[in-house]
Parts: sequence; structure tokens; C-alpha cells
Amino acid sequence: MTFIDQLAAAWQKNNSLLCVGLDPDPAKFPAHLKGRDDAIFEFCAAIVDATADLVCSFKPQIAYFAARRAEDQLEALIAHIHEKHPGIPVILDSKRGDIGSTAEQYAVEAFERYKADAVTVNPYMGRDSVEPYLAYPDKGVILLCRTSNPGGSDLQFLEVNGEKLYERVAALAARDWNSTGQIGLVVGATFPAEIARVRAIVGDMPLLVPGIGAQGGDIEATVKAGKTDNGTGLMINSSRAILYAGKDDGFAAAARRVAQETRDAINLYR
Amino acid sequence: MTFIDQLAAAWQKNNSLLCVGLDPDPAKFPAHLKGRDDAIFEFCAAIVDATADLVCSFKPQIAYFAARRAEDQLEALIAHIHEKHPGIPVILDSKRGDIGSTAEQYAVEAFERYKADAVTVNPYMGRDSVEPYLAYPDKGVILLCRTSNPGGSDLQFLEVNGEKLYERVAALAARDWNSTGQIGLVVGATFPAEIARVRAIVGDMPLLVPGIGAQGGDIEATVKAGKTDNGTGLMINSSRAILYAGKDDGFAAAARRVAQETRDAINLYR
Repeated sequence: MTFIDQLAAAWQKNNSLLCVGLDPDPAKFPAHLKGRDDAIFEFCAAIVDATADLVCSFKPQIAYFAARRAEDQLEALIAHIHEKHPGIPVILDSKRGDIGSTAEQYAVEAFERYKADAVTVNPYMGRDSVEPYLAYPDKGVILLCRTSNPGGSDLQFLEVNGEKLYERVAALAARDWNSTGQIGLVVGATFPAEIARVRAIVGDMPLLVPGIGAQGGDIEATVKAGKTDNGTGLMINSSRAILYAGKDDGFAAAARRVAQETRDAINLYR
Repeated sequence: MTFIDQLAAAWQKNNSLLCVGLDPDPAKFPAHLKGRDDAIFEFCAAIVDATADLVCSFKPQIAYFAARRAEDQLEALIAHIHEKHPGIPVILDSKRGDIGSTAEQYAVEAFERYKADAVTVNPYMGRDSVEPYLAYPDKGVILLCRTSNPGGSDLQFLEVNGEKLYERVAALAARDWNSTGQIGLVVGATFPAEIARVRAIVGDMPLLVPGIGAQGGDIEATVKAGKTDNGTGLMINSSRAILYAGKDDGFAAAARRVAQETRDAINLYR
């Protein structure tokens, strides 16, 4: 099954547009996990098991694993999701971007080594930096378009021939690069008007929307601006607000509670 | 010693603007290395030892290691360069780019785990995606500006207020982001006129120039367009043409011969 089909099935089965971002920071782990060699895996797997029926996808952020020499725990985590929660797609958030021959290696990393269902990719190097990922027909490729961080406007908001750079990226992605239907876009939740602009440009393309929760984006405005006619089309990501909802043995139950509240808050506006 | 000072010393000591890119592809390794668990390290270390007195820097490309679960060999390779060839800076080519809190993790990966002296970074997410790297005052941060791949123009050549996007990136890097003097830029060798434009914008900032050799860039035009008044300012990268110059036991000697020819060809025009 393709990433897009898996995502559509998960939207429906779990009645959820919520994506839980897995950004494991050992300094914030509950005390009983600290110091364990497999703490990153154990923490993330507990979050996954507590929330898998409430989400449309999981999104591990590779930087948090790579900084701690924990690639093996990332492999184990993705295998765990596939085995225990089949049908929930895994987006590897790595934002790679490089020339074709190097991007081929990154595609091997994401899809053959980690067995992710989709990967985030930086579009700055253009079409041939995206194509090697598209050579895997079942996989999804989610391009950075408009990001919610303070410096996101430095380049993305520049005017190019009467439109903003992020609008040009959306148009390139939708019109020129997406003949196989594998592409999605990252659009930050702190700019609902811009989510609406992107939605107008790209039709029903899936949008990955970080920035609610810890980053302050507004759920109602985000959902209304970004949903498709059938009330889907979004993977609304929350990471820290869910992962670190509780501090002790009850961290997974606390994460489940916040995930459920977030899913339900999103569903109010679909 | 800072990356910039190390680079200046290596330019002078080895009379070289050549950077050897380490993109290890096991399919192209000599037969005696094939199948060995440490083949990637052994291949790269042999190239390094055969060329270290001819270069101003080494640039391992992390995708080639990550695709093969060989992060440990990358760590060992960088440690080998630091131990056997002190003074030759190592640029980790990973082209990461993410929001501040995630970029902090990537900075830990590059500088604390791998102990690279500099790292390549993608500027699409703006200033706060660059700052976490600059928090390491001895390290270099080399931003993608103008890349030499076929799709490089898709975004980088767009007009923004009368200049090209890559020129805006160069200006942002030189005028707004470089108060600490740690930044360099990637500018591909296939566009000498654009190297000259970037040089005019950024003063003496170091430029990492891929695209000679296998990618077809012209050495004379590249050097003339990019050198600073004192005949330095460039790290001219060659990877495949040097790594795979020979096919058998003599691969390291063949790599040395091509590296020497390339260094000398560059020096003709300084």
C-alpha cells in the first residue's frame, strides 16, 4: 500500500489528523528511564503504544537520535511501529537535500535502512534533489514549503515575480514535480492565511503542519485553513506537548490524554 | 584553533586549494576491500593518507555512510584524520537545516559526536536554523548558496527584488548572519560568472566549490572567478575523479596522482 493510501486509511480508521512527533530528549525523560542504554527506544515505544489509535502518523526526528549515536534505536522504533501498529505510516523527519547521486544514498537511508513510509526533504537544490526519493513508488516525499520558525521568512517570504518563494515551491511541487502523486508539503501552523494559500495552490495534496502546541499555533485556524473538502488532507504535528505531558511513571498515560484532547480539538473544526 | 585559521594554515602549508570529497561507494572499491566489514573506513583512510599533504581540507559526505549503517566508520575516519594529519580541517557534508531546537541536535551530531571542524547547512529555514552551529565558536558553517546540479536553478535562480535568490543568500550570510566570521558558502563550479558575483558580495569569505572533475566544471574559470586577492579563499572539491582514479591495489597511488594534478592545475591560475 502506498504512503498516501495508508495515510487516508489512518485518517479514517482513527478519525484523526494528529501526527505525533517523536523528538526524544533524554534530559526530559522520567527518572526510571534515565541512564538506560535503550532509554530512547523505550520512551518512544511507550508513547507510540499509548497513542497509536489516536493518530494518523508518527514522525520521528532523526537529529535527536543521531546526536546520541542512537541510529539502532531509531531502526528498532520504526520496526516496532510497523509490527505493533500496522497501517500507521511513519514519516522520517530528516529534511535532507542534496544532488541526485547523494540524494540516492539518502533515499536508501530513509526507505531501505529505516523503512520509513515517507521522508521530509528540503527543496532548495531543486527537482533532481527530489527525484531519487520518488523512485520508490510506494513512499511519500514531504517537501519543506513554509516553516513556522522565526527565521522561516528570511527566504520563504521573499517576493519572486509577484508571489512569495513558499508559494512558488508549492506550485513547483504540485504542478511540475508531482506526476506520481507522492508529494506532500510542510506548512507551519503559525501562519493560517498561508496554509490557506498553499491549500488553494495544491488541491488535495497532504500537508504536514508542525507548530501547534509548544510552538503556539492555533488549532481552529489551522484546521479551517488547511482541510480538504472531505475534512482530511492534514497531518497536524505535536511533539513536545504530548511527549512531555507527564514527568514520572505515568508519562505514557499523560501523553495519551493530551493526544486525545488534541485529536478531539482538531476534530471540532473538520 | 578555529576552522577559518586551520583552513588558512592548510592553504599555505600544502600550497593547495583542493578539498578531497569522501563519498565512498563500495560498488566502486578495489576487489581486495570488497566484503570487508570496515571497507568504507579502510578505503577512505587510504585515500586520506595518500593525499593529506596535497589538500586544504577533507569533506566526508554523510549520506554514503548513513545508507550503509556505517556511522561508526565515519567517526573512526574523522578521528584518523585528526590524529594522523593534524591541521587539515574536516568538513562534514550533511546539508542539515531545521528549526533551532532541532538544529541544536544536529550541531551536537556534527561537532560533538563526529568532531568535524565545519559542517554544510541548508539556508532555506533561515537565520535561527543556522545559529545553533555558530554557538560553537571554533567551528565553520558552510551554507548552500548556488549549487551545481541540474535543478539548482529551480529556486536559487529565481528573481527577488532585482537579484537572484542565491545572491540574496550570499548577502544575508555575509551581512546579517556572519558577525562571528564563521560562515562560508557552497557555490558550484559549473557557473563561474556566479562564483564571481558571490565573491563580489561576500568579500574574503571562504567558498566551497564542488563540481570540477566528474561534474565538468572548468578549473581556470573557477579559480579566476573565485580566488581572493591573496590567491586563496577557495576549497575546490573533487570526489569521484580522485577516489576512483584507480581500480585495483594501486587505487591510493592513483588517487594521489590525480589529486596532485588537480592541485597543480588549480595553482596555475592563482
